[in-house]
This record gives sequence, C-alpha cells and structure tokens, in this order.
Amino acid sequence: MSDIARQLDFVSDHMPIIRGIGRRFAAGRPFDGLTVAVRIHVEPKTAVLVRILRDGGARVIALGNKGTTNDELAELLQREDIEVLGDRADDDSTMQAHLATLAAATPDVVLDNGAELIEMLVAGGEHPRGATEETTSGAFTLRGPLKGKVPFPVIVINDSPLKAIVENKHGVGQSVIETIRLATNALLQRRRMVVLGYGWCGRGIALYGKAAGADVAVVEPDAVKALEAAIDGFAVSELEDELERGDVFVTATGAVGVITVDHMAGMKDNALLANAGHFDTEIDVVGLRDAAESVTARGADIRQYVLPNGRSIDLIAEGKMVNLAVGGSRGNSIEIMDLGFSLQALSLERLARDPASLSLGDQPVPADIDDAVARAMVAEMMK
Amino acid sequence: MSDIARQLDFVSDHMPIIRGIGRRFAAGRPFDGLTVAVRIHVEPKTAVLVRILRDGGARVIALGNKGTTNDELAELLQREDIEVLGDRADDDSTMQAHLATLAAATPDVVLDNGAELIEMLVAGGEHPRGATEETTSGAFTLRGPLKGKVPFPVIVINDSPLKAIVENKHGVGQSVIETIRLATNALLQRRRMVVLGYGWCGRGIALYGKAAGADVAVVEPDAVKALEAAIDGFAVSELEDELERGDVFVTATGAVGVITVDHMAGMKDNALLANAGHFDTEIDVVGLRDAAESVTARGADIRQYVLPNGRSIDLIAEGKMVNLAVGGSRGNSIEIMDLGFSLQALSLERLARDPASLSLGDQPVPADIDDAVARAMVAEMMK
Amino acid sequence: MSDIARQLDFVSDHMPIIRGIGRRFAAGRPFDGLTVAVRIHVEPKTAVLVRILRDGGARVIALGNKGTTNDELAELLQREDIEVLGDRADDDSTMQAHLATLAAATPDVVLDNGAELIEMLVAGGEHPRGATEETTSGAFTLRGPLKGKVPFPVIVINDSPLKAIVENKHGVGQSVIETIRLATNALLQRRRMVVLGYGWCGRGIALYGKAAGADVAVVEPDAVKALEAAIDGFAVSELEDELERGDVFVTATGAVGVITVDHMAGMKDNALLANAGHFDTEIDVVGLRDAAESVTARGADIRQYVLPNGRSIDLIAEGKMVNLAVGGSRGNSIEIMDLGFSLQALSLERLARDPASLSLGDQPVPADIDDAVARAMVAEMMK
Amino acid sequence: MSDIARQLDFVSDHMPIIRGIGRRFAAGRPFDGLTVAVRIHVEPKTAVLVRILRDGGARVIALGNKGTTNDELAELLQREDIEVLGDRADDDSTMQAHLATLAAATPDVVLDNGAELIEMLVAGGEHPRGATEETTSGAFTLRGPLKGKVPFPVIVINDSPLKAIVENKHGVGQSVIETIRLATNALLQRRRMVVLGYGWCGRGIALYGKAAGADVAVVEPDAVKALEAAIDGFAVSELEDELERGDVFVTATGAVGVITVDHMAGMKDNALLANAGHFDTEIDVVGLRDAAESVTARGADIRQYVLPNGRSIDLIAEGKMVNLAVGGSRGNSIEIMDLGFSLQALSLERLARDPASLSLGDQPVPADIDDAVARAMVAEMMK
Repeated sequence: MSDIARQLDFVSDHMPIIRGIGRRFAAGRPFDGLTVAVRIHVEPKTAVLVRILRDGGARVIALGNKGTTNDELAELLQREDIEVLGDRADDDSTMQAHLATLAAATPDVVLDNGAELIEMLVAGGEHPRGATEETTSGAFTLRGPLKGKVPFPVIVINDSPLKAIVENKHGVGQSVIETIRLATNALLQRRRMVVLGYGWCGRGIALYGKAAGADVAVVEPDAVKALEAAIDGFAVSELEDELERGDVFVTATGAVGVITVDHMAGMKDNALLANAGHFDTEIDVVGLRDAAESVTARGADIRQYVLPNGRSIDLIAEGKMVNLAVGGSRGNSIEIMDLGFSLQALSLERLARDPASLSLGDQPVPADIDDAVARAMVAEMMK
Repeated sequence: MSDIARQLDFVSDHMPIIRGIGRRFAAGRPFDGLTVAVRIHVEPKTAVLVRILRDGGARVIALGNKGTTNDELAELLQREDIEVLGDRADDDSTMQAHLATLAAATPDVVLDNGAELIEMLVAGGEHPRGATEETTSGAFTLRGPLKGKVPFPVIVINDSPLKAIVENKHGVGQSVIETIRLATNALLQRRRMVVLGYGWCGRGIALYGKAAGADVAVVEPDAVKALEAAIDGFAVSELEDELERGDVFVTATGAVGVITVDHMAGMKDNALLANAGHFDTEIDVVGLRDAAESVTARGADIRQYVLPNGRSIDLIAEGKMVNLAVGGSRGNSIEIMDLGFSLQALSLERLARDPASLSLGDQPVPADIDDAVARAMVAEMMK
Repeated sequence: MSDIARQLDFVSDHMPIIRGIGRRFAAGRPFDGLTVAVRIHVEPKTAVLVRILRDGGARVIALGNKGTTNDELAELLQREDIEVLGDRADDDSTMQAHLATLAAATPDVVLDNGAELIEMLVAGGEHPRGATEETTSGAFTLRGPLKGKVPFPVIVINDSPLKAIVENKHGVGQSVIETIRLATNALLQRRRMVVLGYGWCGRGIALYGKAAGADVAVVEPDAVKALEAAIDGFAVSELEDELERGDVFVTATGAVGVITVDHMAGMKDNALLANAGHFDTEIDVVGLRDAAESVTARGADIRQYVLPNGRSIDLIAEGKMVNLAVGGSRGNSIEIMDLGFSLQALSLERLARDPASLSLGDQPVPADIDDAVARAMVAEMMK
Repeated sequence: MSDIARQLDFVSDHMPIIRGIGRRFAAGRPFDGLTVAVRIHVEPKTAVLVRILRDGGARVIALGNKGTTNDELAELLQREDIEVLGDRADDDSTMQAHLATLAAATPDVVLDNGAELIEMLVAGGEHPRGATEETTSGAFTLRGPLKGKVPFPVIVINDSPLKAIVENKHGVGQSVIETIRLATNALLQRRRMVVLGYGWCGRGIALYGKAAGADVAVVEPDAVKALEAAIDGFAVSELEDELERGDVFVTATGAVGVITVDHMAGMKDNALLANAGHFDTEIDVVGLRDAAESVTARGADIRQYVLPNGRSIDLIAEGKMVNLAVGGSRGNSIEIMDLGFSLQALSLERLARDPASLSLGDQPVPADIDDAVARAMVAEMMK
C-alpha cells in the first residue's frame, strides 16, 4: 500500500460520522445517475467525502483550490474512478479553465468553495438541483452580486452554527496558532499578537493565542463583537495603535486589504504577518511585493520583505491561509473535517433527493441536519 | 453621610456610562410628566438607574423582587422622591398586592422583571407607551401566554447580545462560582461540577467553574449547544449519569423542575445544589421540603436536607438565584450593571420619546442602542 | 444547636484528613499531660484542629491574631474546655499581654503564627519540647534575629511544599481574587492588576487574577522568579512603570513598605490597593493615614484616602490580609485548611512524642509527614 | 545563500542573548587554544552556540544525537572550520565510534548530552577542565554510577531553575502537544490524555494539553507532586486505571519501561502513545516490536502495532522524543534555545576561565549565571 493510501486509511479510521453516512449512501445510492461537481482542497481528508459520494452512486468531478492540491492523492483518486482536475502548480488562468470544464459538465449537484463555480453556472444559465457553498467568502458573493439571481437552492455550510463553533473557532483557531509556531518556531509567550477580526475564526485565534501565552489584542470595527473581545479578556485596539507594539499580526476578517503597505511600513522591524482568511488578499501582498526593496526566504514558509524605509516584515506563507499553506501542516483536525463533511454529505443528499423542500438562493443548513450531525459528534467525543 | 449613601457614591463612581446618560437626561428631561414603573432588585446599583430616570423628569415608582430588597436603601430612595413599594420580608401575597398597586398607577413607561407587571397591565387593558423586560424568563411569557396580546412595544433587554455575553456569560457566570465558594468555602479543584443548561449563563458558569479548577460536566438537551460545550472542553453528559458522580449541581436552564426529588435521592451524600436561573423552581425545592425527614441550617446560606433513603443534600440559598441571594454577595459587577442599565435607560427613553418607531409586542433592543452602549463600554474598559 | 456549632459541624464534615488523625489521637492520646499553646486565627476551621489536640489529651490554650477572632466561636470553645485568650477588639498592647500570658503557661508544645510567641519563650529562657511555626513571615524571624538562638526544634509548616502549592498558591491566590471582588464588586476583566511578589502567593494571585480576566503585571526583584512570571504569560514590570497604568495593586512580598506613600501619590485616581501578605505593613498604611487629607469609608471594606496632590486611592481592609479581613470572607477553603492542620497535627505529635528525632532551630516538615498528608489529600480529591 | 544558511540567519536574529554573549566572546576569546567537545543535536539553533564557541577561540568538535542530525547543516558547519562527526543515519555502533573519537581528541572543555562522553572520559582517565551536562538523564548517571568518580567539575545545565521552567515546562510542554497534533492531526478536545510523570516536562505537557482541550490525567508516584497535579486541576490516577480510558498516553518520567507491552495490551484500540523523555526506552518499544503481529506505517510519524490479542496501538515517532523526532517539527522555540545555550555558553566560559571556583563532580549552574541569563531574557521578552 502506498503512503498516501495508508494515510487515507488512518484518516478514515478517525472520521466515524462520515463513515456511518457512507455506509448508508452505499446501501441507498442517493446519487445514482447524478453528476456531482466538487470544488474542494484535494487532500486526504476531503478524499473520504469524495469517496462516499461515489459510493452513493455519483459521477464525481473534483477540482482543488489554487496551490493546495496533493498531486499524489489526485492520482490515487483518479485510479478509483473519481475525476480530478488540475494540480498544485496551477496558476490563476489554468484554474479558470478547470472551472469552465467543471461547469461544462452540467453537474446535477454542486459542492462549491468560494462561489466561483456557482457564479459561472448562473452566468451560463445552468440549473442544477442545487449547490452547497463551503465558505463565508462564497456566501458574501451569494448575498452580494448574486443576490436574487440564483435559480436553485444553495446551502451555505459555513453558516451552520456547528461549523462556526467547531471548525472556525476551535479548528481554525487552534491550527492557525500551531502553524504560526511551526513556520517560525518562535516563542509566543508575552509576544503582542494582534488579531484582526473577532468573527468565529478570530475568536478562536485569540483564544488559542492566549493559551499559547501571547498578549492578544483584537481589532474589530463591530462594536458588539469588540465588546465581546474585551470581556473575554483581550485588549481591544485600533490597528494604527498596534503598529509599533505588535509582534505578530493575524488577519481573519473576510475583507480585502485590511493590512496595507502603509501599515507595514509603520510596524516594528521583523514583525510577523499571517493570514487566516479564505482569500490571500487580506494582507496587501501584491502591494508589498511592488514596494519591497528586497525579498529573502527565511525558512521554508517565511519571506522577509525590506521596505523602502529600511524596516523589514516577515510574511508567512505569502499571505495564503496559514493553517493550510504552511508546509508540514495538515489543515483542520480529522474529526472537525468529519463534522464539516457530514454536513456537506447530508446537505448534498437533501439537494439530490428533495430539492423542492428548500427555497431558492442561499440558505442555512436545514436544522434537522445540524442536529443529527451535532448529536453524532457529541456521541463520538464522549466515547 | 450614611453607609448606604456612601456605597451609592462608590457605585456611581464606577458606572461611567449611565452617569453620562444621566447628565443628558437631566438636561433634556425626556420623561417630563411621565410615570415610570420600575420592577427591579432594590440594591445600590439599581438605585443609580432609578435616580437618573427621576432626574430625567419621571415620577418613579419602584418595586423590588421577592427577598432581595435592601430596606435601608429603600428608605434612602423614598427620602429622594422615589416611591419604593415593599421590603425584604414580603411574601408572595404581599408581592401580588404591590404589583397591583404598581399597575393601578397607570404608568406611561414600564421597566419589568419577569413580565408579571406587563401581564397584569395587559389583563387590565392598560396601554402604556411601552415597556422593557429585563429577563429571559419574562421573554418566555411574552412569547408564550402573551404572544400577540400585548398592545404596546416591549423591548426585551436580556435578548441584547451585550447582555448575553457581558452580563449573563461573564457577570452571572463568574458571580455564581464566587457565591458558591462564598457560601460553602469548599475547594472546587477537581470537584465534579454539573452545569445544567449551556445557554449564556451556563456557558459562563462552566467557564468560570473550570477556571476555579472544577471538573465540569454539562447537561444540555439541545444538540448544537451540547456540541459547543464538548468542543469548549467540557464533558457532556446526562443528569442521570452524573447523579452518583457529581459533587456540585448548578441549574441555569430557565425551565421548571429540572432537578427533581428523585434525582436528589440518587445523588452522593452531601451533594451541593445551587440555582442560577431567575426563578427558584429549577430545583424542586417545594418537593424537597415535603420529602425531607429533617432540615438543618449549615452556615448562613446552606440547608442540609436528609431524604427518606438516608442520603442528605446541601441546598444553597434555598434554590433562589445563588449570585443574588447568598448573604454577603453583591450581585453582578458594577460595570456590568452599568451596561445593563444603560441599555435600559436608552430603551426607556426610546419608549418615552418615539414609541411609534417600534413594533408592538416583544422585540430586541434597537441595534443603534446596542452599538452605542457597546462602544461606550469598550472605551471605558480600555482606559 | 447554635449557628456557630452547626457551622463547625459542616466544616468538620469537609475535613476528612484531620478527622482521621483526630480519631487516632483520641485513641492514642499523644498529648496526655502536656500543655499546648496555640497561636492561630480563631475561626471555625481552626477550631477543628484545636479540638483534636484536646481529644489527644492536651491542655490547650489558644490566642487569635489581631482583629480576626470570631468571638462567638471563642465562647463555644471555652465551654468545651479549651482556653481562649483575647477577642476581635484587642489592640496591640492587649495582644502583647495575651502573648505574655501564653508564655507564662510554660507550654510543652507550641503552635506559633508569626514567631512572636517563640521569640518571647526564647527571651524568657523557656524550653518547650518544640514548636511549629505556621508562617513564612515567622520563618524570617527564625532565620534572622533568632538564628542559632532557639534551643528547641521548630518545624516551619509554611515551608512544606504542600502548603506552598496548595494553600499559598491555590488557596490564598484564589481567595485573594475572590475577596477583592467581594469587597469591590468591580469587574476585573481587562483591569491592569499589578501583583507585587512572585512567591507562592503571588503566583496564585497572578494565576487566578488572569482567570478572572485581569491583565496581570508582576513586579519581582528576583530575576529567576521574574522570568518564571514572564514565561507563565504575565507582563513583568517595575512598580514605578505601573503607577500610571495599574487599576489594582496587590502586595504579596513578605517585605515591609513595598508600596510607599510616594508610590500612591503617583497612581491613577481611585486605584485599588490590597495586601495578601501576613503583616499589614507591606503597604505603608501608617504613612498613608498621616499623609491623607481626608478618609471616607466606601462600602464596608474600603476606605478612600485623598492625598495632598488631590489624587485618591481606595484601600481594601486597611492593608490587612485581604483574604481574611474582608467581611463576609471565610479565609481559606476548608479542604486546604484540612491539609495545613494535618501537617500541624502530625508535626505537633512528632514534637510531643519524638523531639529527639529533630534538630534544634528551624527545619522543614519531616518528609514522611509531607508524604502521608499529600497521599491522604489526593485520595480525598479523587473520591 | 543556501536555504540552511538563510535559516541560520533567521534563527540568529531571534537569539539576542547568545548573540550578545557571542560579541563578548569574539572580543575576549575565552577559549583561545582550547578544544571544546560538543555533544548536541546538530540543527540550526545549536549551530549558533557552536559558532560563538569557535568565535571565542575554541577548536570545536561536534557530535549529534542518534537520528537527529541535520546533514545539510553539518556540511555547512564543516565549511566554517567546525568539525562535525556522524550523520542522521548513524546506528548505535557508529555513534559509539564517534564518541570514542571525541574522547580521543582530549578536549579541554566538554558539553555533554546524556553523560556518555563524560563516562568515557572518566573511564579513560581524562581530565578536562570541566564539562557541562545538558540533560537530567545525564545527571542521573552522574549521581548514580559516576558518583564520586568524576575528577573535574560538571555543571548540570538542566538543573537550572531557568531550564526547568522555561525549557522543560513551557518549551517541551508546548511542543510535545504541538507535535502530537502535527503527527496525528487529531482533535484533542475531550480526549483523555494520560501524562506519566509530573516533573517539569510533565507539568508543561499537562498544562498545554489542557489548553488544547484535552481531559488530562496524571500518573505520578511521588505523593507531593501528585497532589500538585490534583490542585492544579488534573485528574490523578494510576496507569492501570487509565488503560481502558486513555486515548493518548505521553511519558515524561526519565525512567525506563514505564509503559510495558502488558499495559499496551490492555489499552483501547488505536490508543496513541508518545514519549517526551530523553531516552526512547520509557515506552517498551523493543518489547512491542517483538510482541506485535503486524506493523503498519500510518502517516509519516505513526506506526500501528497490532498485538496478539487483536488490539492495536499507534506509536508516534517510534517512542523517540516526540518534540524532536516528528518530521516537520523543529524542536524547542528559538528563544528557549537562546536561554539554554546562554547558560551553556556562560558555564563553558566559567569552566575554561575559572575551573577552580567550582567543586568537583556534578553541580548546578552558578547562581550568578542563572541570574544574568534570566535578567537578559526578561528584558528581551518585555521589549
């Protein structure tokens, strides 16, 4: 057995909820005759989800996100009758071509990750039975540019309170701190860590940052969330006031350009920057590259940029999602993925079997699905 | 200056937000010519709120909750032109009479605490400009028996996310643990503490219980909240499974009779019971008194009940809200009251000045009020 | 049964280790014919210790510390053949007279608390079989002025690693935070709390202060302890740098005059001061009283002193041990007292039965006693 | 510049204390004409220490520990006039040969790591000026078999309270949890984690395990340490009672064979085992290999062993120090290494310059060195 196959086995052993759903899918074949387009990071844990869709009767076509595809795994899946498009080296234009291929396959059910595929389907006048959207970033698109324009149901997985609490707060929060430590090997005790955004991810980053000994400050424009951060015991501050104080800056806002080159020019020498949001635009990396007088790799996952004023900043993983992009990191915990994929699997089944029970456009995960998955996870955790 | 007057000064010094609102009220007199009926625990911190309503032009009539009135303070307020009904010794029937007096005063604006006064006004066909309701327990009544029947706006203060997080989670959570310690002086480290309910209060009790060293188990029927408890690091369990294990049981469910006499009969000898919910019916105290073979006071705030099967349980403060009823405790932190009273004050002002901007029946605090108060509190906390 | 008697029963129920030792003492009567002088806070928990010494055959004469005697309890003990000297109202000169009475009783075994009685016995040429000394402050005297001069063994209880960790760190640490909250009812979340001293008490105060949400800074001259504070996640600072920043200052140094009137004059308005050390001289209260232009009681346990420069400070419990002196507080947890008194009881037994096994002058608790008590406490905690 | 050279630069940037010492060494050349034998993990951080010894005038010969040498780095150092023996692939017999080479070089000053080189020097009748010993495991040898036999001073670095608290508790504690997460990617929230040993490393593993959400139980034969674990809030238990309960077992005892094959046969299926102690003999890996019916690699750092009774256990990194041996991990934090190497550098300087100020045989780091390094580290942490 290959390394990757063994790793898949190990992963599957630790995903009891999705395994149980998979047994039911294999028996009931809810996707028989249907094409399921899957836009997802191609790595061992997601493979488990993709496999049970196939076992449930689906023709599965999968496309990874830019720069995160595990090529060895992609090959293995293809040998198992799962179509995988693209590889780790794909650039933006290649990714667009793959998306077009995915849309052209006229999928019946869609699992999207950033709403780009949904956007393409809507633009092309496609009418799948329905779609799930994994991310909050994708939900912004659905509620902004696509509002009122999507003629099929879209279940926003990340809106599930289960995802918010388990995956975003605890999963992402913990792994962001761990991957910052992994990339830098630096002591966080008493380092000033400035967390931008006190949404679910930000709450988790602040919590686990504090547990790692950091002196955490939160920057959050929403007054109610800012008060929550304060009473949770964190300093609440403005980014401008933290520039000279912060040792580590982590973005988790879902917004674009929250740390500008001007901000960076005001930071302490060797300030560390990392991004935990879905897109690599929270920190203005493009602007930084333009402005920098020199760039030096420092370790595998850190680049030091020297700015015109002589100060340097250390950027982790080029501003990509730090908990996925740092070499050696393995993304979210298996059990957290088990939960997220179980929400996905049951939502995709609902879209396949009973799309009429759902409204058009974006909507939360049906409450009975949330409930069933939560109950299953508590049972596993208390074993 | 009397002790209580000095205490009031000290309290007022630590309530900067309400003080600021008070200065504005004194200048603008939004309650001129109006009668404000106030149902509230009569203790130093609430006095600050009552005073600024008076300074804002209101005729104020106040009524405490059963067993929590500070009689010395009541006297002081009456000397300051604030009418106070009732005293600490009032029993249920006297309280009903006071409520009737309050209703009979045909108040223009109402601050209620448990919805009993609102219920009476509705039954009597009264039409004040509007009311605020402090508690979640009162909100149950508004959304249950009173649903669709209240012909004026009722702003539910406890539904504000500010109250949920600051007062219920951190305020109540912390003071419940402190008052259990105060009443018992017992070491909580490694004691099994069973928290019933993982709403905002329960979350706080579990959090501060863990911080005090307890081994916390959460009992929560809602699967999603139960999962939150688990991923937050708490054991999730069923009450039946905790009877033989638990050392301390704390109720925070908002429901009635969640710990029955049968449950108590199955508990370890000398198990400690406390209630953190609004009403003293979460633990079946009446049933316990009926069933007990003997009752012995153990310290000022604990009674030991010996059950027919020979086991004994120690009940704190007779099942009343432990953080208010334990002797020596002083309820929520001043600053947390500052926040809650600021929400109250601004909501009462809205009801007085612009009731037409609000819908009929129960509704959350207007978002702009939440925002203004949150911003003010963060500013104070970061001073 | 009187209130105090019932409270004693409750306390005794929660002191299983000392109860077990008491049963052995009652059977073996190790103190038959001996006079035991006991210098100890006279409160319900200490009564349990005093009683088992009496049951073990001793004539017991007890003297409380200044200002902490529970007079009702003193009466009860006297009815039980235990001599109690003094009352809560005693001033310094009365205390000296009581100490002289105690010394004049030519005790065979001594339990001291601050080394004042030992000092008097040494000065008077007395030769008891031996003594225990409860406090670190007393140990300073034994190792300073009394070094080489004590012609009998003195077991320093507070030097036991059990006391250091269980009582000083967790017991005192937790109750100091709780009594500051009890005295002030103020929110500690994000308040800057400056802890002076990072010995065992200071470590605990910092730990539980952080758990209560405070932003803790530690002032500690010893570089190794200061580093421990830093890596434990606390800010390490100098008192001078914290004057303008600190909201709460807590002393736990064992030294005299660590917060001077000059320091106080530099603090923020309404800064809170509390002392956790044995003696009420860590904060210069005498100097403060001299300097203050006015003094106002604010609540039962706080006095506001206005300094000549117009700034005011709020002093809790007049600089006496905050966790014992705040009204309503009940000192250390019962189980922690159980541990301390068990060390005392077994050490007093060793002094009575086998003084020759011990060296002269100050020494730690014999390791076999530490071990036996630790084992017993773990067994109780894991029940 | 090569990757490894850049990594060295990055590391050096984050080691300000040793850099400061290095500047002084380069100026004062305390090792001029001396040979320094260095037994140390050969990885980027240790390279910084080795370099300043060279800059201080020493001829340096370095030998890594089994299986941890970074071969690329070894090459780089050799190009810089530092002799490095051995490589990552060395087996036991090759390591012995390298040790013999090191001893044959008749070093003047020795930095040892496990006391094997000191043992060899003593056996060979060598008399260096003195040695430092990095580990507690090595100190066992010095105080056991070598007691009274070492005719030169040996400063035991790991006995420094700085190392105990900073490196062992916080450094090892945190990185053990991180590397278990890195190797398994498993959720630790509510998993029962059994920590064997409550010495400094065990304390840290328990602390950071709890911070990661685990339900931690401590197994510790010393009653006083066991009590510390209990009051710190951990379950205290016996290994036998945890076999059926534990999900993760971590050894940190310094002893041999604490988890036997019999223990493993009684564990839950898929129980995870990891070792945090210096030697890979705390878990009986040899016995496990003999007993296992099959062994399967699961991911890069985990092997699944199936026992004759059909149960399987997952062993991380073959029982080697998990925080060093897991692929992708980078050992202790840079700043923690900075502290340890600063103690080493100043101790080696003392041995070179003033061996007469030291006693023969094992001894702690001189207090003035502890103090100087602690002060420097606090200053850096509070920058």
